[in-house]
Amino acid sequence: MEKKTMALPAEGTGTTLNLALIHHPVVNKRSELIGSAVTNLDVHDIARAAKTYGVAKYFITTPYHDQHLLLQELLAHWQTGHGAKSNPARQQALAIVRLALSLEEVVRNLTEEYRVAPLVVATSAVPRQKTISYRDLAEKIAGKTPVLLLFGTAHGLAPEVIAQADTSLPPISGGTAYNHLSVRSAASIIIDRLLGS
Amino acid sequence: MEKKTMALPAEGTGTTLNLALIHHPVVNKRSELIGSAVTNLDVHDIARAAKTYGVAKYFITTPYHDQHLLLQELLAHWQTGHGAKSNPARQQALAIVRLALSLEEVVRNLTEEYRVAPLVVATSAVPRQKTISYRDLAEKIAGKTPVLLLFGTAHGLAPEVIAQADTSLPPISGGTAYNHLSVRSAASIIIDRLLGS
Repeated sequence: MEKKTMALPAEGTGTTLNLALIHHPVVNKRSELIGSAVTNLDVHDIARAAKTYGVAKYFITTPYHDQHLLLQELLAHWQTGHGAKSNPARQQALAIVRLALSLEEVVRNLTEEYRVAPLVVATSAVPRQKTISYRDLAEKIAGKTPVLLLFGTAHGLAPEVIAQADTSLPPISGGTAYNHLSVRSAASIIIDRLLGS
Repeated sequence: MEKKTMALPAEGTGTTLNLALIHHPVVNKRSELIGSAVTNLDVHDIARAAKTYGVAKYFITTPYHDQHLLLQELLAHWQTGHGAKSNPARQQALAIVRLALSLEEVVRNLTEEYRVAPLVVATSAVPRQKTISYRDLAEKIAGKTPVLLLFGTAHGLAPEVIAQADTSLPPISGGTAYNHLSVRSAASIIIDRLLGS
C-alpha cells in the first residue's frame, strides 16, 4: 500500500481531505481516559463514505499492536484474499485505509507527503473554543489545503487530542436536544457537508 | 410502544419525516429478488441519526417472523432491560423504532396516524425516472407533509418497491465514480440533507 502512495500522491487522487479515527486516547461515558477496540464496521463504513467523496487517506489510529495485527488480517482479506474477488468495490474503499500508532505518526506521514503540515481539525459532539465553519473548511479543501479531520471512538476524543488540533468543527445539530450519533453517521454527514455538492 | 404512539402523534414530536428500512423485497448483487437478515447496527445507527434530527418513526420492515422475534428481544433489552439503565440515550433513540411486516403495513399505519397517505419516496444508488430534489423534499417536510422515506438493505430496493413509491431522491454523489455507501451512511447523509440546518 505504501508504495502505491509514494507513486500516486493524495493530491492526484481526489481531495486533500484525510481522516483519522482515534482509538486512544479517547474518553468513556464518565470522561475517563481509555483506549477503545477497533470496530470492523467503523473501518468499512467510513472507508466507503470516504471513497465516495474522494477522501485521500483514512487512518485507523491505535497504539495497540494486537489491534494492528487484527486490522492487517482484515485488510488483507479484502485487498488480496477472497474478499478482493467477491467484492472489488470494497477492495477499492479499503485501499485508502492506513494504520497508525498515534496522531503524531499520522501528522508526520501527511507532512512528508504534502511537504507542509496538515490543518488538524477535531470533531466533537460538544462545542469547543476554537472552531471553523463547515463552509470555511470546505473552501480550504477546495483550495487544496491539506486537512486532517479527527474522529473519536467511544465517547469522543480526549481533551489532550483536541488540544493538539489546530481547530474544530461545530457539533452536528439536528435541531433536537439529542446528540448521540454513531461515529459512522457523524463521519458520513461531515464528509458530505465538506465535499458533497 | 403502540399505546405511546396513539397518545403522542408524530406531528407533535418533531418532524413529519418517517423512515422504513426494507428487508424484502430487495436485490442481491446479481439483481435477483431476495430477503435480507436484520442487522443490529442498521437498527441502532439509523435510529440514533433519526432521533438526532427529529424523525417521527423508523420502521424496520421484514416479512420474516423470526426476525421480528429477534428485533423484539433486541428492543426490549434497550427499552426495559439492562440497556435502558446503562444507556438511556440509546433507549430514547430506539423508542422511535417500529416493526412492520410490509411496506403496505407501514403506509397503512402512517395513513391512519396522519389521516392522509404519506408521500412515499424511494432512495437508490442509481438514478430513477421520477425524482424530487433534496431541497423540494426538505420544503415539503418543513411544510408538515407526511413523508415516508424508503431505504433498501442488501444491494437496494427491488424494482417493485420503487414502482410503489410516489417519487425518489437522486443518488448521493460524492463527485467520484464510487457509489457504494452503506445504508447507515446513506441514511445519515440523506437525513442531514433533509433536516440539517
